[in-house]
Amino acid sequence: MSTSTLQHELFGRIRHLIGADLLEVEKVFHAELKSQNGYVEDLLAHAARFTGKRLRPILLLLTAKAVRDINPAHYTLAAVVEMIHTATLVHDDVLDEAETRRHVATLNNRWNNETSVLFGDYLFTHAFHLAASLETTRACRLIGRSTNIVCEGELSQIRSRGNFDLSEDEYFRIIDGKTGELCAVACELGALYADGADEVVKAMTQYGHLLGMAFQIADDVLDMTGTEGETGKTLGTDLQKQKLTLPLIRLLSQSTPEQGQVIRELLSQPDEQSVKQLMTYLATSDALEYTQQKAFEFAANARQELQVLPASPARDILEELADFATQRNF
Amino acid sequence: MSTSTLQHELFGRIRHLIGADLLEVEKVFHAELKSQNGYVEDLLAHAARFTGKRLRPILLLLTAKAVRDINPAHYTLAAVVEMIHTATLVHDDVLDEAETRRHVATLNNRWNNETSVLFGDYLFTHAFHLAASLETTRACRLIGRSTNIVCEGELSQIRSRGNFDLSEDEYFRIIDGKTGELCAVACELGALYADGADEVVKAMTQYGHLLGMAFQIADDVLDMTGTEGETGKTLGTDLQKQKLTLPLIRLLSQSTPEQGQVIRELLSQPDEQSVKQLMTYLATSDALEYTQQKAFEFAANARQELQVLPASPARDILEELADFATQRNF
Repeated sequence: MSTSTLQHELFGRIRHLIGADLLEVEKVFHAELKSQNGYVEDLLAHAARFTGKRLRPILLLLTAKAVRDINPAHYTLAAVVEMIHTATLVHDDVLDEAETRRHVATLNNRWNNETSVLFGDYLFTHAFHLAASLETTRACRLIGRSTNIVCEGELSQIRSRGNFDLSEDEYFRIIDGKTGELCAVACELGALYADGADEVVKAMTQYGHLLGMAFQIADDVLDMTGTEGETGKTLGTDLQKQKLTLPLIRLLSQSTPEQGQVIRELLSQPDEQSVKQLMTYLATSDALEYTQQKAFEFAANARQELQVLPASPARDILEELADFATQRNF
Repeated sequence: MSTSTLQHELFGRIRHLIGADLLEVEKVFHAELKSQNGYVEDLLAHAARFTGKRLRPILLLLTAKAVRDINPAHYTLAAVVEMIHTATLVHDDVLDEAETRRHVATLNNRWNNETSVLFGDYLFTHAFHLAASLETTRACRLIGRSTNIVCEGELSQIRSRGNFDLSEDEYFRIIDGKTGELCAVACELGALYADGADEVVKAMTQYGHLLGMAFQIADDVLDMTGTEGETGKTLGTDLQKQKLTLPLIRLLSQSTPEQGQVIRELLSQPDEQSVKQLMTYLATSDALEYTQQKAFEFAANARQELQVLPASPARDILEELADFATQRNF
């Protein structure tokens, strides 16, 4: 079967198992964000374009179901986690627009930028407001701590831009904060609010971390090998932004000092020509294969954590999501 | 006594009454934001330049003291409110930097912009994390709801930019969301966590709203009449941003149709020359006097709400803050 058929089939089974629950999450999500303000309503409609596969609500609900069962608190928590994810996407958009504006600095762009900053804040504050509707502060504390870590991860990534000596370990720490953390807290909340035992909650949190990292590493490979139609993104964006991802870290570590010198020079002037040359270097090295292998390892370790759970259809799908993370970006 | 002597004297008495408590708030503030990450530490040091008079913590603590007494929960709450205020300032800074960058679009500027968006998020999420350290979700809920309103107020203001038909009522609604709301929740939390009776909490919340609005209206006058040294801001910024504040709303409402036409044309092309001409129109009308009068009215109404409290040094200072709001920007 082709990758897209596999994806279609997997999401069909997810809908079959927790489709009604996902609809409840959508209801909570939209009820919280409903505004009297027409302008905000327009922005919310606009934000619908970010609606992806709802990966984080899916992880939270599947974990709950695999541990025990889904209850109404899970709907609230899943909506909270998705709202935070959307807020980070809206703010990422600001950062990207900022770059575009270096070339075309229109007033209209600026207006959108201001709105995006505030709209992202609006989503963040609504997420916390919604989390506070639960009985105790437990979820507020976990979500607060988790979003702190996400922000630090993103700040570290910006700081590391242009640092061509970034180590593998530093890279893993950054993507764990940026991507792993929110997947981890989704699984943690799913297990915790299904009254999972301590070791189950711990294993599921770890599953979320490893799965998120597998996704991110696969994403970093896709940035260099995917087709633009598939990924919906411009290829080589990471190179243009001097963002050192695993393929490049590997390439540099395997280069002779002379090659390394050339690569660093190309990286420091990432124009179209340089990016093309870097792509050639990558294609003729083991860097992409090595990175893909690392993604497989993270996915395998994620699957391993699931052994703490009894066999169930929900656990089966969590396993498949781990395989899937490394095969396709969504 | 001159205004600055009055200010000095007032803040001297505030320090005398609640100086030790304000230090406790600073401790909580910095303990929450302490980071292992050197980069974040640098940003925090940088953010210290936003440290103002800590007006919101002062309001929260004085309210607590005037209602009953200050307890440790108030320190946490005051730090939370100040952190949210700082986050909104950091994000305002992004919006302002964006404008500067229309002229000088350096990479360094862009880098700062990205960092500011994320650093503001970092402060927001830490504020919520800190609020969740309290025993119940009560504060999380109030702070969540309040920050929702602040974001909507700011979005409404951006939307209203360039709308030269903004009414007084719409303007009041916007500044109540943008500035009144956070002062209101500071007073509300102060009273609530000092076990104030319902009508006391309600009156203090209203005091916060009215005081915040008096401050904002006075600020809008200062944008057109202050000296740059005093305000630390570029004069006429609101005009340049086509932000219709009360002086202009009044000016337009008192103009003949022909004058109105000229003013609208000047507003729609707010270059240096136009701003100068608009300032002349304002100076020869009753607009600034009318606006100052409105600020006095809001301050008087704020003072009125304090009658629900027994006489005390804390209540005296809350009264003086209301007078002061209209006389000086801080």
